[in-house]
Amino acid sequence: MAPRAVVLLSGGLDSATALAVARAEGYECHALSFDYGQRHARELESAKNVAAALGAAQHLTLSLDLRAIGGSALTGNIEVPKGRSDEAMGAGIPVTYVPARNTIFLAHALAWAEVLGSQDVFIGVNAVDYSGYPDCRPEFIEAFEALANLATQAGVEGTSRFRIHTPLIALSKAQIVARAYELDVDLSLTWSCYEPEPDGRACGLCDSCFLRKKGFAEARLVDPVPSAR
Amino acid sequence: MAPRAVVLLSGGLDSATALAVARAEGYECHALSFDYGQRHARELESAKNVAAALGAAQHLTLSLDLRAIGGSALTGNIEVPKGRSDEAMGAGIPVTYVPARNTIFLAHALAWAEVLGSQDVFIGVNAVDYSGYPDCRPEFIEAFEALANLATQAGVEGTSRFRIHTPLIALSKAQIVARAYELDVDLSLTWSCYEPEPDGRACGLCDSCFLRKKGFAEARLVDPVPSAR
Repeated sequence: MAPRAVVLLSGGLDSATALAVARAEGYECHALSFDYGQRHARELESAKNVAAALGAAQHLTLSLDLRAIGGSALTGNIEVPKGRSDEAMGAGIPVTYVPARNTIFLAHALAWAEVLGSQDVFIGVNAVDYSGYPDCRPEFIEAFEALANLATQAGVEGTSRFRIHTPLIALSKAQIVARAYELDVDLSLTWSCYEPEPDGRACGLCDSCFLRKKGFAEARLVDPVPSAR
Repeated sequence: MAPRAVVLLSGGLDSATALAVARAEGYECHALSFDYGQRHARELESAKNVAAALGAAQHLTLSLDLRAIGGSALTGNIEVPKGRSDEAMGAGIPVTYVPARNTIFLAHALAWAEVLGSQDVFIGVNAVDYSGYPDCRPEFIEAFEALANLATQAGVEGTSRFRIHTPLIALSKAQIVARAYELDVDLSLTWSCYEPEPDGRACGLCDSCFLRKKGFAEARLVDPVPSAR
């Protein structure tokens, strides 16, 4: 029987690729998404389609009330920055940062893994071409893995060891796009834009669009998802 | 201005006492509760009353879908054990354990603390007279504190240091009851029972009732909350 993995799946380019990697490594994949009040809830439709296309054994979408906590442009009334330069993006943590989001996501993934008898959690974080979010860095992931092994029944009994897999953490966005193509991920199903245009196309100007466009350009490939710019 | 603290508040004896301690230490308290599909949702009414009685600046109740994850007698169809001996309780992790619950609760507390500009989170965990849950142990709390300082904006910028306060961790249940009395906590407002009787009284037989009764008995005090046994 294939070992089970829980794969965090936002519906974007990175998490779709992480799911494809987990599948290629032989895991039975249980995909986990969150409806957390994000502006771009459209990504949840993408997550559903990506999970189906990549043969996930199960796809669970949990509701979280991160709007009640606030503090982010993705869940509140703060404006999503558009047209920022590479330099501006490197200068600090942007307003699209959602406080403790990956800690909350990984905590739920851990709970589900424990129930499924899985020791493996995949997350598509990336610390090269990224938005400067603190909870995408390798040291954060290592600290969560240490926590996971103390937080659970298996941790107390010493019967298993949780691993947080980050197959994309050291890749550039272009390398992620290339990896997705190698693994036959249908990237037309994915969604990255934080604030889609009224006509449904990606805005092409938010940080997430910027990074995605950079990745496709550097990989010399054409993004199948239509963008306004 | 008083520093702000986020206090996890279930509405039980321990978390009410932890809130009273935080208040006595001079914090402006922001109480956080979770409606996570627990059988004993009645504790949420207690949490509201305790927060008001102890002068919390704010009380936020977030919804979590832990029933969809399952794996616990508190959120699913597994029966709540009744009438277990002290010995049986010491023998392992009970079915009332909710996978990764404290990791999930602390992750949300961290998010809210970051938004509130608070560096202090209080949690009423106890590692003496407790149910053997892995996520009540000091090593778990230390690992979460380490994680918190890597997970957040302040952690990256090095501008603040999160502390997870566990004022009850080394106290016996009797000492917690005594501390609550010293701090004038109205314990009639609290609720501990996992599975109340149809007439509204505490069952007196679940692990949570057992520990509470033990605490009051050893402290030579009378529990103001009516119990069936």
